[in-house]
Amino acid sequence: MVGAGVIGLATAWRCAQRGFNVTVVDPDPGRGASHYAAGMLAPVTEAHFGEESLLHLTIEAARRYPAFVADLQAAAGISVGYRTTGMLAVAFDNDDRAVLAELHAYHNSLGLTSTLLSSRECRDREPALAPAIRAGLWVEGDHQVDNRRLVQALRAACDRVGVRFLPTEAHLDVHGNRVRGANGIPAAATVLAAGAWSPHVAGLPEAVRPPVRPVKGQILRLRVDPNRPLLTRAVRAFVRGRPLYVVPRETGEIVVGGTVEEMGFDQRVTVEAVADLLDDARRLVPGLVDADFVEASAGLRPGSPDNGPMVGPSGVDGLVIATGHYRNGILLAPITADAVAELLATGAIPEEFVPFDPRRFFDPDWSARHSHRRTAPAASPRSGKDGTSAEPDAARDEKEAATK
Amino acid sequence: MVGAGVIGLATAWRCAQRGFNVTVVDPDPGRGASHYAAGMLAPVTEAHFGEESLLHLTIEAARRYPAFVADLQAAAGISVGYRTTGMLAVAFDNDDRAVLAELHAYHNSLGLTSTLLSSRECRDREPALAPAIRAGLWVEGDHQVDNRRLVQALRAACDRVGVRFLPTEAHLDVHGNRVRGANGIPAAATVLAAGAWSPHVAGLPEAVRPPVRPVKGQILRLRVDPNRPLLTRAVRAFVRGRPLYVVPRETGEIVVGGTVEEMGFDQRVTVEAVADLLDDARRLVPGLVDADFVEASAGLRPGSPDNGPMVGPSGVDGLVIATGHYRNGILLAPITADAVAELLATGAIPEEFVPFDPRRFFDPDWSARHSHRRTAPAASPRSGKDGTSAEPDAARDEKEAATK
Repeated sequence: MVGAGVIGLATAWRCAQRGFNVTVVDPDPGRGASHYAAGMLAPVTEAHFGEESLLHLTIEAARRYPAFVADLQAAAGISVGYRTTGMLAVAFDNDDRAVLAELHAYHNSLGLTSTLLSSRECRDREPALAPAIRAGLWVEGDHQVDNRRLVQALRAACDRVGVRFLPTEAHLDVHGNRVRGANGIPAAATVLAAGAWSPHVAGLPEAVRPPVRPVKGQILRLRVDPNRPLLTRAVRAFVRGRPLYVVPRETGEIVVGGTVEEMGFDQRVTVEAVADLLDDARRLVPGLVDADFVEASAGLRPGSPDNGPMVGPSGVDGLVIATGHYRNGILLAPITADAVAELLATGAIPEEFVPFDPRRFFDPDWSARHSHRRTAPAASPRSGKDGTSAEPDAARDEKEAATK
Repeated sequence: MVGAGVIGLATAWRCAQRGFNVTVVDPDPGRGASHYAAGMLAPVTEAHFGEESLLHLTIEAARRYPAFVADLQAAAGISVGYRTTGMLAVAFDNDDRAVLAELHAYHNSLGLTSTLLSSRECRDREPALAPAIRAGLWVEGDHQVDNRRLVQALRAACDRVGVRFLPTEAHLDVHGNRVRGANGIPAAATVLAAGAWSPHVAGLPEAVRPPVRPVKGQILRLRVDPNRPLLTRAVRAFVRGRPLYVVPRETGEIVVGGTVEEMGFDQRVTVEAVADLLDDARRLVPGLVDADFVEASAGLRPGSPDNGPMVGPSGVDGLVIATGHYRNGILLAPITADAVAELLATGAIPEEFVPFDPRRFFDPDWSARHSHRRTAPAASPRSGKDGTSAEPDAARDEKEAATK
């Protein structure tokens, strides 16, 4: 496994649970985008027109989250702060209100549940919201998890199941047309899960360099007395044209984020972003003026050309890709981990990941073959288990494989 | 020595240079107020009506700073970022301008040099200042030092001269009416230099508990490209009624501070202060919007009832006090260190510290005796060296004493 973010760790854990020997290579485990995320599990409020395949995946990911959390917490002995308190999107003006109404109609058209609220109904639910709020859209099914405790729990679970960590820069060991491991450790399959850094891992064959790019997000961590939590639900809004989310934890931590910046590998925190986030957050929740200021930081999301992740065979023997999760890494980590473990064990990827095969970016013929497959009688999501792998390049079912 | 802030470290270094065996007890060396300061050396811009004794002391301290810096840099091999670029106080409105004119007249009455500037003259000197500036007061003699590098250099200098560090909570060893050391290490003299924490050191006799209190200051550290420094001089102002200073370092660091809060032992950084400092700093220097945001932190200055430090014999045998430096700790550290070393070596404190004898707060008779002494023919500042100590309670000239 190359990469110890939430994707790499969850995948390492699931693979080890299935009996693989797993080594994870990362110079600074758990300190990538997973560390800076807000931990929103929001398939519905994150739904975008035209991204229905992704919506299908994120909805399924959210549905499986409670079982994953229960499993992980039992394995790690660490609570990950999973909260099923829903999410409230609010509007400051008539334009924003119209956007919420459109989103609500879109939800309806897809059979998703959301509820339009008046200003008063918003403030009845969250009295700390600014009186200037005009309307809201309430999504009961969107949840949150404490991303840092999630990473911590995954590391503990990995340790307990025997995953080894190699805290150094990764380099792939390539022989001929096959990736044979990384950093001198042989492996039947190597999973590239280095987030925005994935294309730059040493030794990666040029032909399968995943087209991910760093998308910077600056984020604040504030704190209030957990006995006087100010907010009980995650709230999002556009404030003066800028997206903002405010995510309250049970611990009293309040995560404030929203910036989406194309800046390359730049993790500097800027005066402008901190000032804007503080201004916007106080405009949304005036009582935040009395909160403690704990941290300002910047993470790099692994952005993808079509906003969908890249999970599956790379097209190069022995190399599997799991990156490009952009804004949905925390939400998609469990379902990605299960899919990669399934792929390594059976040679087949679950059906919901077929639209997110990395080869859609590498192989001009892939789309044609893929649409052919999609018209064939649909296999059950786990049908790969019968051993007839639809992915000839995928790693085989080798229980003794050292997965790195 | 109890306390490894800038006062304790400078004093330990100077005492060790004079041949004393010195042990410094501090659970977290160099992480008190010295760590959070801005490093302004500003006797003139900090001059306040009615505090002429303090002004006399701070002027003398500033005069000696270059020699101290040269000495320390040679001893430690570390540059402390001493900059003689002056300080510019600016006014945003007519009220502020009137305050600057009064301050200028006050400076004149004391023979201090300051220059009133027009808005244009301010912006000629510092083009990044906001056009809204109405006037300024230029003080060429007020300088700055990088407080963190100063602390680092003092630690290195202490190490090189054989000062020992005991990284634990201090407790005084008291036998009868005499302090005999701290933490089980016997000492002829023990110096209490624990800043705002001084009154709470374990074992301290109640009668000589120095009346210092924590005065919170919240401070930001920003960064710009050192090749495009935005400002070359320290600038201060009142912005919307709030004091603000912006101190540029050669390294590109820009320190922004100004809050003065009576909050007890509270080092929380608040949303309100960070937002206000960012707003005010951008109002003063709009280009700061493009700076990096590096750190927000809060320190506790050791405030004193009369804003003057407490440096000298405590009145309890074996215990010397050096605290209460409030906003002038960085500036006064060298002169304090010299005074304490002189006191320990000769039994007499230099004349300029007589008004800052700690016993002014403990001993109702002290003031009377003190005014008597002041009418006697003035001794030279170092006259205590003749061995006739005017301070019968002070530690004696014991070269082998372990000073803690």
